[in-house]
Amino acid sequence: MKNYIKKDFPVSNVRRFLEPGPIILVSSAWKNEKNIMTMGWHMMMEFEPSLIGCYIWTENHSFNMIRKSKECVINIPTAEMADKVVRIGNCSGDEINKFEKFELTALTGTKVKAPLIKECYANFECKLIDSTLIKKYSLFIFEVVKAHVATSPQLPKTIHYRGDGLFMISGQTTRKYRRLFKPEML
Amino acid sequence: MKNYIKKDFPVSNVRRFLEPGPIILVSSAWKNEKNIMTMGWHMMMEFEPSLIGCYIWTENHSFNMIRKSKECVINIPTAEMADKVVRIGNCSGDEINKFEKFELTALTGTKVKAPLIKECYANFECKLIDSTLIKKYSLFIFEVVKAHVATSPQLPKTIHYRGDGLFMISGQTTRKYRRLFKPEML
Repeated sequence: MKNYIKKDFPVSNVRRFLEPGPIILVSSAWKNEKNIMTMGWHMMMEFEPSLIGCYIWTENHSFNMIRKSKECVINIPTAEMADKVVRIGNCSGDEINKFEKFELTALTGTKVKAPLIKECYANFECKLIDSTLIKKYSLFIFEVVKAHVATSPQLPKTIHYRGDGLFMISGQTTRKYRRLFKPEML
Repeated sequence: MKNYIKKDFPVSNVRRFLEPGPIILVSSAWKNEKNIMTMGWHMMMEFEPSLIGCYIWTENHSFNMIRKSKECVINIPTAEMADKVVRIGNCSGDEINKFEKFELTALTGTKVKAPLIKECYANFECKLIDSTLIKKYSLFIFEVVKAHVATSPQLPKTIHYRGDGLFMISGQTTRKYRRLFKPEML
């Protein structure tokens, strides 16, 4: 796996990595436990503050850990981690320590106690800023309070879930439509 | 542009096309007006009922049309439509009829009055089922009440927005991780 060098990244611009819709790994900590879950249901909700909505199923072991700690880290895995990403999503933190089992490195964040996954391309430290929609919709609204992004490559290959065990791997990025934007829309 | 033949598709499985995170075209109708907007901020929220959350900015001309009509159609454009998709997102329905200007065909839906865009790969007829989060988060929660999907190709090339005028074009879909899923997770 790559040993990324990461830099601070403006939190108002995390859409660059989330809006294309990749599968993410959500890490959390509660009491003496750490956990990781695989997640595909998320969306950008605001630039400033930098808000992200995430659906977390009540049956996920991370559900209560995140609800109680009011924090998480959103980590972006690249295509080379796909095998681990799928395995992480198919076992429960109830039974195993996923950091150990999948040989992932938990790094200490700067603003949250939830661990960053070192092997991921980007790490967004998040605070739960609205828990009122959890009961009705399993919807957690997070603010990204600190972002760390690898300096290279500029555009990572990400994995996007189609359901039924199928994944789309991100293709080429093109600048050719940029000229069609009004300056204020960029 | 392709002349798709479409079939009914199970609404509980629209995640197959939305979860990978493509840019979508949202069409609406209100009084004697039809409109289209380009949208990247959406997420799956439930299988049954089939729920989708969408962020619609108050400044979009479609905002009030959808809020008042309580309906829309989510249309999935393919990569060959990228030029139109960007142009649609960079002008306002306030000033022009986008169906006419971009030579798109408005088809009549079966369950909503909002028009389907014929030239898109898939069309999901939606009803606004929760408007209580619009004021605070510009978040519209829709239920997909009818889905129409092209019979071919099985996996369309979609466009995914990265911000700053850059688009990622979807790459290959792989089945090779399917064997790692528990049967109940598929």
